[in-house]
Amino acid sequence: MEKLEMLYEGKAKRIYATDEPGVFWVEYKDDATAFNGEKRATIMGKGELNNRITSIFFRMLKEKGIENHFIKELSPTEQLVKKVEIVPLEVVTRNVAAGSLAKRLGMEEGTVLPQPVVEFYYKDDALGDPLVNDSHIDVLGIASAEERARLREMALAVNEVLVSYMKERKVTLVDFKLEFGRLEDGTLLLADEISPDTCRFWDADTNEKLDKDRFRRDLGNVEDAYKEILKRIGGETHV
Amino acid sequence: MEKLEMLYEGKAKRIYATDEPGVFWVEYKDDATAFNGEKRATIMGKGELNNRITSIFFRMLKEKGIENHFIKELSPTEQLVKKVEIVPLEVVTRNVAAGSLAKRLGMEEGTVLPQPVVEFYYKDDALGDPLVNDSHIDVLGIASAEERARLREMALAVNEVLVSYMKERKVTLVDFKLEFGRLEDGTLLLADEISPDTCRFWDADTNEKLDKDRFRRDLGNVEDAYKEILKRIGGETHV
Repeated sequence: MEKLEMLYEGKAKRIYATDEPGVFWVEYKDDATAFNGEKRATIMGKGELNNRITSIFFRMLKEKGIENHFIKELSPTEQLVKKVEIVPLEVVTRNVAAGSLAKRLGMEEGTVLPQPVVEFYYKDDALGDPLVNDSHIDVLGIASAEERARLREMALAVNEVLVSYMKERKVTLVDFKLEFGRLEDGTLLLADEISPDTCRFWDADTNEKLDKDRFRRDLGNVEDAYKEILKRIGGETHV
Repeated sequence: MEKLEMLYEGKAKRIYATDEPGVFWVEYKDDATAFNGEKRATIMGKGELNNRITSIFFRMLKEKGIENHFIKELSPTEQLVKKVEIVPLEVVTRNVAAGSLAKRLGMEEGTVLPQPVVEFYYKDDALGDPLVNDSHIDVLGIASAEERARLREMALAVNEVLVSYMKERKVTLVDFKLEFGRLEDGTLLLADEISPDTCRFWDADTNEKLDKDRFRRDLGNVEDAYKEILKRIGGETHV
């Protein structure tokens, strides 16, 4: 297979076309950004860690019956995925109050939620990825009511699988962001990545943060935290 | 009827108990606040104008079949209302992009929305009345799914009546905030006020703002704008 032109460069990944129809080539970068790009750094090895972690999660989710765009790992920092058109919504699922939810609802960080919270954020850097409700999404015309119901259902299904998978590995899944895409026939498919960049992972015993909050909040040892997550889910790297 | 102890003092109104069960006594104040209380002023006559405007709107809505808490005007600045327990949600309905919606979705102020947008904000001054979605409201436990459906339905019904009523009076109803309360049996009832403090009203020909944005944005002639609204809906004051 041949890697063709770059289609998209995001904060953490580059997406390329390939000579195979319906297949994209993804390259994970070492760039770290936070607060809508206001804080930037390069974290050596992050691209490899997130490629490996995402690959393990997506393979596991597929085994558990949750279809997704992942095809296979190509190299430490590259993977092949199915071509989808990304729905411009970040679908956030939360089990424990942290970050913006703790602020929004005035809850102490760490409060266990009585039930999972699902939120949609409009993927738009210029607007700062604002929280949107169903009525906003209708006006934006970016996902139908049926699609939103399906997105919620899939997010909660991923949550159920991931919570128990991580719990067995002594990690609390606090919250996470998913992105979904449409295949050519319109079917919604889990896409993007699942990694310490997109999840809040806390050590189940100590509540130590093993995710991007170490970068956002200048807690240090970012790379070690990502390595720890990879180790807990049984992966290895050359980093 | 006797006015008894003050039960609540808000930014624009005081609520008193009465010696009649199930009846509250409302006093409209001249105080104006914006941006969650950060900007404050006294606008002479505002209490009277809003009491009169709200009374006219609530009587008209009742005639159109929309039940609400209004009982009767007592004086230029006072009215009697049915006792309800206020649901801590601001229910905002929008027909034209303005204010926070224009910012949130990156739309130019004045853009006519393809359909009305309904939003829920959690009434909490300390949190700055944040936008909340259904999932947040479930966690807060402040309104059930059935109640939310009813709030949306009632907000859209009020919108339909108010849009056409104001259109006949050459005023565009851009957006407005409603509050609802529960009677003792749990029935939801439209409550609070409907006035230039809680609506965006634009002159239909010139788009001149005839509402609280004149205060928020330092446009001057706040009182004249409120008087103009009262005049258009057929009321008189002593102001």
